[in-house]
Amino acid sequence: LVLSCSVQASHPNLVITQADVLDMRKAINEQGRFATAYKNLKAKVDLQMALPIEVPVPKDGGGGYTHERHKKNYQLMYDAGILFQLSQDKTYADYVRNMLLAYAQLYPTLELHPARKVKSQNSGKLFWQSLNEAVWLVHTIQAYDFVYGALSAQDIKRIETNLLKPVALFLSEGQPSTFNKVHNHGTWATAGVGMAGYVMNEPEWVEKALYDLEKSGKGGFLKQLDELFSPQGYYNEGPYYQRYALLPFVTFAKAIDNNDPQRKIFQYRDGIVLKAIDTTIQLSYSGLFFPINDAIKSKGIDTIELVHGVALAYSLTKEPGYLDIAKQQNQIILSGNGLKVAQALDQGLAAPYPFISVAFGDGSDGKQGALVIMRSQLAGDQAVLFKPAAQGLGHGHFDKLTWQFYDQTKEIVSDYGAARFLNVEAKFGGRYLPENESYAKQTVAHNTVVVDETSHFDGDVEVGNANAPVLSYFETSSRGTVSSAKIDTAYQGVELKRTMALVNLTELEKTIVLDVFDVVASGEHQLDLPLHYQGQLIDMNFALSVSTDQLSALGAKNGYQHLWLKGRGLPEQGLAKVSWLNENGRFYTHTSLVNGQEEFLFTQLGANDPHFNLRNEQAFVRRVNNKKQHQFISVLEPHGEYNPGKEYTLDAASQVTQLSYSQQGEVMLINITIAGVSYLIAINQVPDGSIKQNFQYQDQSFSINSRLAVFALNDDEE
Amino acid sequence: LVLSCSVQASHPNLVITQADVLDMRKAINEQGRFATAYKNLKAKVDLQMALPIEVPVPKDGGGGYTHERHKKNYQLMYDAGILFQLSQDKTYADYVRNMLLAYAQLYPTLELHPARKVKSQNSGKLFWQSLNEAVWLVHTIQAYDFVYGALSAQDIKRIETNLLKPVALFLSEGQPSTFNKVHNHGTWATAGVGMAGYVMNEPEWVEKALYDLEKSGKGGFLKQLDELFSPQGYYNEGPYYQRYALLPFVTFAKAIDNNDPQRKIFQYRDGIVLKAIDTTIQLSYSGLFFPINDAIKSKGIDTIELVHGVALAYSLTKEPGYLDIAKQQNQIILSGNGLKVAQALDQGLAAPYPFISVAFGDGSDGKQGALVIMRSQLAGDQAVLFKPAAQGLGHGHFDKLTWQFYDQTKEIVSDYGAARFLNVEAKFGGRYLPENESYAKQTVAHNTVVVDETSHFDGDVEVGNANAPVLSYFETSSRGTVSSAKIDTAYQGVELKRTMALVNLTELEKTIVLDVFDVVASGEHQLDLPLHYQGQLIDMNFALSVSTDQLSALGAKNGYQHLWLKGRGLPEQGLAKVSWLNENGRFYTHTSLVNGQEEFLFTQLGANDPHFNLRNEQAFVRRVNNKKQHQFISVLEPHGEYNPGKEYTLDAASQVTQLSYSQQGEVMLINITIAGVSYLIAINQVPDGSIKQNFQYQDQSFSINSRLAVFALNDDEE
Ligand SMILES: [Zn+2]
Ligand SMILES: [Zn+2]
Repeated sequence: LVLSCSVQASHPNLVITQADVLDMRKAINEQGRFATAYKNLKAKVDLQMALPIEVPVPKDGGGGYTHERHKKNYQLMYDAGILFQLSQDKTYADYVRNMLLAYAQLYPTLELHPARKVKSQNSGKLFWQSLNEAVWLVHTIQAYDFVYGALSAQDIKRIETNLLKPVALFLSEGQPSTFNKVHNHGTWATAGVGMAGYVMNEPEWVEKALYDLEKSGKGGFLKQLDELFSPQGYYNEGPYYQRYALLPFVTFAKAIDNNDPQRKIFQYRDGIVLKAIDTTIQLSYSGLFFPINDAIKSKGIDTIELVHGVALAYSLTKEPGYLDIAKQQNQIILSGNGLKVAQALDQGLAAPYPFISVAFGDGSDGKQGALVIMRSQLAGDQAVLFKPAAQGLGHGHFDKLTWQFYDQTKEIVSDYGAARFLNVEAKFGGRYLPENESYAKQTVAHNTVVVDETSHFDGDVEVGNANAPVLSYFETSSRGTVSSAKIDTAYQGVELKRTMALVNLTELEKTIVLDVFDVVASGEHQLDLPLHYQGQLIDMNFALSVSTDQLSALGAKNGYQHLWLKGRGLPEQGLAKVSWLNENGRFYTHTSLVNGQEEFLFTQLGANDPHFNLRNEQAFVRRVNNKKQHQFISVLEPHGEYNPGKEYTLDAASQVTQLSYSQQGEVMLINITIAGVSYLIAINQVPDGSIKQNFQYQDQSFSINSRLAVFALNDDEE
Repeated sequence: LVLSCSVQASHPNLVITQADVLDMRKAINEQGRFATAYKNLKAKVDLQMALPIEVPVPKDGGGGYTHERHKKNYQLMYDAGILFQLSQDKTYADYVRNMLLAYAQLYPTLELHPARKVKSQNSGKLFWQSLNEAVWLVHTIQAYDFVYGALSAQDIKRIETNLLKPVALFLSEGQPSTFNKVHNHGTWATAGVGMAGYVMNEPEWVEKALYDLEKSGKGGFLKQLDELFSPQGYYNEGPYYQRYALLPFVTFAKAIDNNDPQRKIFQYRDGIVLKAIDTTIQLSYSGLFFPINDAIKSKGIDTIELVHGVALAYSLTKEPGYLDIAKQQNQIILSGNGLKVAQALDQGLAAPYPFISVAFGDGSDGKQGALVIMRSQLAGDQAVLFKPAAQGLGHGHFDKLTWQFYDQTKEIVSDYGAARFLNVEAKFGGRYLPENESYAKQTVAHNTVVVDETSHFDGDVEVGNANAPVLSYFETSSRGTVSSAKIDTAYQGVELKRTMALVNLTELEKTIVLDVFDVVASGEHQLDLPLHYQGQLIDMNFALSVSTDQLSALGAKNGYQHLWLKGRGLPEQGLAKVSWLNENGRFYTHTSLVNGQEEFLFTQLGANDPHFNLRNEQAFVRRVNNKKQHQFISVLEPHGEYNPGKEYTLDAASQVTQLSYSQQGEVMLINITIAGVSYLIAINQVPDGSIKQNFQYQDQSFSINSRLAVFALNDDEE
């Protein structure tokens, strides 16, 4: 253990230091983004400070008046505190002081919150959950630190004795189960208590925050850094929750660095804090987070937690790509890191952020499956998300091996995300809708195989948490990105194995997505592979029987009850094509190589939805029956442009004219003819992908010494 | 008659003059938008000129190879011609010369086009329709004019004798029915022939173009200016066709002005050319044209026809608002007018274009009903389109008295527009879809009353063309905009009368839309009033019986066969509310004042649509049965904000708490309480709206001497 040896000397010294303050004071008198942000915050806070201070007796749960008021108060104290530091105008310090004194008067009178939820979470006193109380402390301790120098000794005593120390003790000794827990809620508690320790010169509190109440190292902030992220910085619940989890890590780590630089917190676990920030950015497309698990789709990189994260990442690395993200966030925070970002942006130092193709190993050891992202810039900014990731706890979806596709800023092959209208009272009180369980989490709501109309793990989250898929391989090169994964625990006696590739056809300036989904079972089953597409259906190349004046639900449960069956068709052996037009103006054709046994079911979401809670999205489901074994093979091809504004339409028809699949030893061979060019795509499946494989194809010899190879064939027929 | 006395002296002298050319040559050597546009065009044309010239023997109809090639050729000749004038590089002139000579060789060998459509339209020789041939001439004659100075006397003779004169004669003497017709197709012909007359010194052709082949004045360009636009410059078929019709008017008028300034063409009919341009702009919202009639929704002000129009409008008026539009168009044309726009934009002279509330009288006399636009900037940029306009010929919809609403850049209450995927072969050859007739044109596809599930005029376009609604009044002031209109010919024995207002509630910084629809019939009928809304249904304040596992079509014909009935409810007497959330993040609540007899039918588009041609949009239909008389009264209220990205939701619930309706003499009185404020809205219906009316309400005396008054009532209850 590294013992703390800091001496509490000066204020402020948490996230923002005295040196930062001097720089910031200079900057607000110059032109630039920082000064603008300062003026905007000042105008906003001045409006609030004109109103009387309200510190109500706690009464309401989440969303209610006293709850929202106490949330507003900690933000106001924080903002007024930083304004005091920058302006040196004592009015701001007085405002914080008066509010702190009001809290110091109230707090000793409080019992546990009257609206507490006894079973589900530890209660706070100001708030119904101790989580909110910890967030309150994280902000308030910083505000206190800002105004410390303007307080009388008597005020300091009252505030520390009656408010800040009791809150810190309540959140640590008072709730060991949360404080010691290796969980995001624990992080807020350790961050608050640890920072309180720095400010009020209680080094023991810092030790406990870092190593748990017993200083055992089994819990506490460092253990949280060890376990809540994978070695690459991926957070098990997915990006929507990752960005939320980020803030206490970023905040407390910076305070530790300022107070105890010898702890080298930013080097901890090979720089895990920075990795966690960077991974959050990588988990976005066109400014929005990939909507896996219970994610609300409009959440993106401009979220305030990531504004803090990016400011820290830039200040640690000076990588100009972070400035590009900061520019899109369009928000400057008033801190030392924020100043560095603002000044660099003013100087025009931003450069494109390098989005990459990557497999993020899941779980604290990075071995609980992986979240795979494939990107290409060949034909516009594209991304495939492939998800052989772990369940991701209670907000996880039963979506093993699902995928999504993004092109030209839009979702093309999509995930429903969470079924929820956040804070809209009329929609189930703004909470997760019943349809989140009955549809959004179910396997059929995803682009992966459903066996016998039953969700993965039979919809049991505990079983899901205990059984992750296995990432077989991932490789990226100039020819594209390929990955393969499998899972044999989603269904008893069934192995699911999926191989996906985003392939660059450089000669054609085109990309395609290859998808080979193998199912091998011990008994016979019905196998469904849905594809949820975004856009208007344009065409298919096979006959369809359409339900024109009567619709029924596709099934009775596990999400099927929410799908209207609009039409069905059984394409003959060969290529089965379905085309749609996305709102981005591009066409997409999904070509399946079928054997005459795959039925295509076209669906629309919205059945059994009495409150109109669901968006009416479209899908088609490939179905085979009574199968012990089946291989779903398909190619997704973006093409053409629909521009009715300029009155032209280009390449509205698919250019895939031939597709065949074969295997030689461990090498998967896909022969595809597209726009008149014949390609042989080889995927090497041997356990050790670096071992060179030789194979023959159409009387030619080939070899592959990587996972993916793409050969342009001599086309003798032309 | 004003006789032409111009002497053909110099080239070029059509849309672009020699003086323009000198200015443009200077500008391309300076920095700025014009030089950039020049370089871009040059790069584009250079690429094309590197390929061999192709002047194929005509064979294909619209969309086919020879058709598209000849279209491409006239644009190429035009572009190369202007590049020759600007660069003085003879390569460009040679290219135009060579192509013209190729045409001069081909043209004498041609008969009427093999793919001509004998019954529907005059045939061309290069194209299947003479319309395309006229467009070809309008471009080609300008290209010829550009390169004239670089041609030998021999070339001139061959080109004029074998090509240009025959084409001009073919389009005039050769097809008197089109040339003399007061119709948009006639405008292209007269423009082409008239300009050919200027270039080839045939003043008689100019006379015929202006006054018809007999020079009678019964047809020709001037008559077209008289009759195709209303006095305010509104084109009967609506904005989608108006912008298309605009180009030959703008082009030929400019050529007339340059050659025969004494004709004062831009003052003709009180400046109708400029009015037509300006009206086209007014008929847009957020850059897109209002999609009435057979309109494709993504068509907007950046359409090339309007780029030409705006350049002319700016050059005629120097109004900085046109620069604002030009900026949004983001395209500079290489002409004298284009240069003026580019330079003014470079100087930063643009100012917001003044969009106004206005009633455009329809028909050449302006008295065939009207298209009404109401705008407000009080709560963001809003527009109501109210349509007591004439049928608008074959592309018109059976939508008398319908309305649309726009807010914060989006459609809120919408029109389907045309059912068509322009040029998408798989979608019915890219033509209008069958569903354009069976759904999009039908009354139920609009937000207006349908009697007995039958469309207006029983769907007969001839009857529609002969019977326009009557605009009773229109008025706009700081309190808002109000209009009322009626029609008694849409259904036999039924009078439809609608009064709409976009009302500013200044104290609340809110707007509402008032809608009172009166139906009076001689017999009993079923009356339906649909409302097509854009967004996710959030809530209604009455019980609904929802079809959860089986859907059926709402009806059998006239568009009803395409609507799935999702649910129905019969609200009790009082206020019936339906709320939805638009993708712009705002909530909208439609509150109807009901008497317990209006049933609400919730529908989704998509029944009887075997080819998935329709977008699956939502509506609700208010229905009463066996009624001789009914009044549909409602208020549309925008409110709140949904921002899941920033995690807040404001005012998701309607703030209308009370609504009542009464009438005193000719004054309509709507009392509404919203956000705790009680308003009395009075609408004066007397024939002469300027006569002051007195009335009592809740023991207070009021008077109104305009159409619309809004009084904030003393609310004794508070
Ligand atoms: Zn999901
Ligand atoms: Zn319409």
